[in-house]
Amino acid sequence: MDKFLHDHPTTPRTRDEKQAVVNRLKRIEGQVRGIQKMVEEDRYCVDILVQISAINAAMKNVGFEVAERHVKHCVSDAVKTGEGNEAIDELMDVMKQFSK
Amino acid sequence: MDKFLHDHPTTPRTRDEKQAVVNRLKRIEGQVRGIQKMVEEDRYCVDILVQISAINAAMKNVGFEVAERHVKHCVSDAVKTGEGNEAIDELMDVMKQFSK
Amino acid sequence: MDKFLHDHPTTPRTRDEKQAVVNRLKRIEGQVRGIQKMVEEDRYCVDILVQISAINAAMKNVGFEVAERHVKHCVSDAVKTGEGNEAIDELMDVMKQFSK
Amino acid sequence: MDKFLHDHPTTPRTRDEKQAVVNRLKRIEGQVRGIQKMVEEDRYCVDILVQISAINAAMKNVGFEVAERHVKHCVSDAVKTGEGNEAIDELMDVMKQFSK
Repeated sequence: MDKFLHDHPTTPRTRDEKQAVVNRLKRIEGQVRGIQKMVEEDRYCVDILVQISAINAAMKNVGFEVAERHVKHCVSDAVKTGEGNEAIDELMDVMKQFSK
Repeated sequence: MDKFLHDHPTTPRTRDEKQAVVNRLKRIEGQVRGIQKMVEEDRYCVDILVQISAINAAMKNVGFEVAERHVKHCVSDAVKTGEGNEAIDELMDVMKQFSK
Repeated sequence: MDKFLHDHPTTPRTRDEKQAVVNRLKRIEGQVRGIQKMVEEDRYCVDILVQISAINAAMKNVGFEVAERHVKHCVSDAVKTGEGNEAIDELMDVMKQFSK
Repeated sequence: MDKFLHDHPTTPRTRDEKQAVVNRLKRIEGQVRGIQKMVEEDRYCVDILVQISAINAAMKNVGFEVAERHVKHCVSDAVKTGEGNEAIDELMDVMKQFSK
């Protein structure tokens, strides 16, 4: 994928926005550690798979939040300044990866 | 989903098997922390989404390894003792969740 | 999901655009009929699953093309007229469904 | 993916089993034709994406039914005759493709 434009979002994330995402990621990090413990305790495979599915769902939700903000700020700003197509191509590329 | 049978796999995981899965989960845990850092540094949304996609792929791989061992041991043992259908129904239920 | 705005795209699809999508859908329709034949001939389950996976991939590709055009036209137009957020919420809702 | 064993399931599908799967595929075929019509009528992109998501979900359900029968018959038979691991490796390969 060609890198389109930025090192940062066009509108910086506020402290609250950052905190909200970081909190969700910390919870996911805890869930990943929880699975390590399940494996070490030799817990039943299906119970482990249920937890892995839960993490995937939580991670997808974080991804969709990041994507939504991206479209509402970076992509929208690009559209307004006439660079919409490049930003949208980049968006679609990453959504294809993400939705696998 | 009805819990089929077990608290543990029918054949206990060896120390090496556990270690291999735990190592992969530790790497994923590190990747999740890496994304927290990216958010705190207000990094570009698309770069964050690429990392989230990588974690999802890694997590799916761990899930498929757990599932493969589950079918090779727990489900196979159930098949041999005539309890195959219950074990397979349970397997399919969790694979549906997992492949969402 | 709340219906946002339209019965039609903000920019009508050209005859060529329609034809390109319809051709891909006709090919998919043929693949679905192909699987019916495989089932009637009692073909091996794994071969059928490979074909089903191929159809899903093809269908996803069509979906991403429709989504890309949607963002480049309808969503971009909404952004320019100050209705971006509604259009983007609607987009994210359908992408969540679509990426399951 | 290496082809494991068969041209047919180890236990032939009954006429009723075939009919049930074919009926579901015919319904999906009709849905694919429905989308062609929507494109020709230049219907709103999001409405088309909703239909595509519905087809993907229906196709996945058919796939899971085929997979379930496969595990209950072909894989189980392989397990009983000591060829389980090859059958399970083949199963996991196709499930990875399928769950993308």
